[in-house]
Amino acid sequence: MLNVNEYFEGQVKSIGFESGGERASVGVMLPGEYTFATAAPERMTVVKGAMTVKLPGHIDWETYYPGDDFEVPGDASFHVKVEKETAYLCDYL
Amino acid sequence: MLNVNEYFEGQVKSIGFESGGERASVGVMLPGEYTFATAAPERMTVVKGAMTVKLPGHIDWETYYPGDDFEVPGDASFHVKVEKETAYLCDYL
Repeated sequence: MLNVNEYFEGQVKSIGFESGGERASVGVMLPGEYTFATAAPERMTVVKGAMTVKLPGHIDWETYYPGDDFEVPGDASFHVKVEKETAYLCDYL
Repeated sequence: MLNVNEYFEGQVKSIGFESGGERASVGVMLPGEYTFATAAPERMTVVKGAMTVKLPGHIDWETYYPGDDFEVPGDASFHVKVEKETAYLCDYL
């Protein structure tokens, strides 16, 4: 099953899927600033574009490029700034 | 703008976008066998899963894994077999 989801009034869209028992999604963010809440821990990998991120408990923002990834604990939130359309893979850990 | 598209009765879904003037899409394929037609040339990059591909003019099938890419000329078609849910990035060249 492929589940299309929209967030932030359609500024972010994703397709959720399960591959070999692992849950994941790919998505795209339009330029903007977003706060995402996690239920389970997840690993985000930039696929195209760039993502500037402030992780929970961090003071600094860090920019991630295609191929870069970062992990976010469950039951947390993280902040993302995107200057151009950015595609990502989210693996639920 | 983020354009969600469905192909093959919803077995393949994608999100089209433009990033820095480049058109691209990310998508997910459910297990199955598909023939895609290209208008413009494109580069496909596997994001998660695996994709076994027969390119136009080729006799052999080749399997691509996350991070691998292949290019397809415009106005052509290529065949894809997917054994598990597979996510990809498509860059229009």
